[in-house]
Amino acid sequence: MNRYEQQLASYATQVNDALRERLHFDRELRQIVVVDAMRHSLLDAGKRLRAAMVLEFGRLTHASREGAMALACAIEMIHAYSLIHDDLPCMDDDDFRRGKPSCHKAFGEANALLAGDGLLTLAFETAADAPLSDAQRVEAVRTLAKAAGVCGMLGGQVIDLGCEGKPVDLETLNTLYALKTGALLRASARLGCLAGNAGEELLETADRYARACGLAFQITDDILDVAGDAEKLGKPTGSDEENHKTTYVTLLGLSGARERARELIGEAGECVAAIPGNEFLLWVAEMILGRDH
Amino acid sequence: MNRYEQQLASYATQVNDALRERLHFDRELRQIVVVDAMRHSLLDAGKRLRAAMVLEFGRLTHASREGAMALACAIEMIHAYSLIHDDLPCMDDDDFRRGKPSCHKAFGEANALLAGDGLLTLAFETAADAPLSDAQRVEAVRTLAKAAGVCGMLGGQVIDLGCEGKPVDLETLNTLYALKTGALLRASARLGCLAGNAGEELLETADRYARACGLAFQITDDILDVAGDAEKLGKPTGSDEENHKTTYVTLLGLSGARERARELIGEAGECVAAIPGNEFLLWVAEMILGRDH
Repeated sequence: MNRYEQQLASYATQVNDALRERLHFDRELRQIVVVDAMRHSLLDAGKRLRAAMVLEFGRLTHASREGAMALACAIEMIHAYSLIHDDLPCMDDDDFRRGKPSCHKAFGEANALLAGDGLLTLAFETAADAPLSDAQRVEAVRTLAKAAGVCGMLGGQVIDLGCEGKPVDLETLNTLYALKTGALLRASARLGCLAGNAGEELLETADRYARACGLAFQITDDILDVAGDAEKLGKPTGSDEENHKTTYVTLLGLSGARERARELIGEAGECVAAIPGNEFLLWVAEMILGRDH
Repeated sequence: MNRYEQQLASYATQVNDALRERLHFDRELRQIVVVDAMRHSLLDAGKRLRAAMVLEFGRLTHASREGAMALACAIEMIHAYSLIHDDLPCMDDDDFRRGKPSCHKAFGEANALLAGDGLLTLAFETAADAPLSDAQRVEAVRTLAKAAGVCGMLGGQVIDLGCEGKPVDLETLNTLYALKTGALLRASARLGCLAGNAGEELLETADRYARACGLAFQITDDILDVAGDAEKLGKPTGSDEENHKTTYVTLLGLSGARERARELIGEAGECVAAIPGNEFLLWVAEMILGRDH
């Protein structure tokens, strides 16, 4: 592992520990099923890219570690909720997620529905309880709600549903990706900056960086679905073609999609070029481009 | 209509207007489906008992009208979200709600799922944007999250799922009702008091009042399912018996359940006896007892 991989892994370990702590409820055993379902989807899952972005922007803005960590947990809860609900039979109907059974496969549909609801709710409680000023907490709640809501991630899911089986143009695909993936990544960068009381200029810079990373992330997803390794991905490839889904690869071809992703990563790098200590952010952008899962 | 009925109707009109305004998004038409689904379940629906409780405790504590109204909207959004998800096929599988098709019947399961998610998210955004101090906003978000989450309403739904088809004792039923209905009513009373910066003593009093009202409400629900008029209720009666559901009526009999509800309403009245201007609260408690839908 190079030092940036170590940093990312360290952020992931820290956020997993913090999440585990926050999922500890002193309630009757009878409720354990839904809490187990929440744990199943939330803990030790994924690279924690969103949390890492909160924590790194928090570090760059000298935020308190605990304050930034609470917001990192909140964004990961919202991410996990969205995956649980996305996987449900009435949505994408996915049986697997990150190589293990999706939440409803492991706990049944009703528990998965409620586990998602519970994580979304807990995200807001976590932000409201963050060891930050009231003004920061309010702004964090607002940021999370806007990113998750109808004008953010949820809007992306709705557009996605509406596009099913239909040809989609590049503009719509850009909107869809900006909302579905971009909104949470942008919120992550913003939350880190908020925790450190960053000024408007840095908020704007962080936003442009995260927006470019988010779109590049989604484009590499499209590429991996065509050219990736199912084992490394922990899910089958070729599902977009099977579902007649329009992607960046369908619209621009494999090399066109790769080129667009590389352009975006270049843009992301330019955004943060002037920030001292930007090495991790630059590496994250390159990692998104080069990832194989 | 007596003056209290007029007051309740006036609160309902005000909150419907405020909710309608908050569901006005300037987004592309493509997203209109889920917003329509949110509108379908949120607007002009029900007596707005929770909103009325926020607004009345707000009035009694001299809260700003706009501040209390924002929190009243937030609690109604959470109530509507819970009904949408409760009605889904994987939960209670109800085709009707308040005499009209349930959300998934009207808009499909995926849109209903997302409409519920959207309303839950919007509730927190609404609280964070409420024209109140940051400290009040944070406390409102916390109150909503705790009431809706695993240790509140959601915990009640989980217990409910676990009880399906099994005999249930009175203690479990009390816990179930306290969480499933009680948590949101208690949050409503608390939110009104918060908006008016009420002291600990009034918060405590309001909490005991709402708790008694909540349990009485649920018991009359059980009674109406046996002895009510399907037309007035807007849903068929006898569903608890059909589903072999343990209720207050199964455990205490019809007259036992009626007596317990009357006791609780008496307790609720005693709680607020010393509050000047308590007439509406006293009437609400009696109305819960005497309601036929």
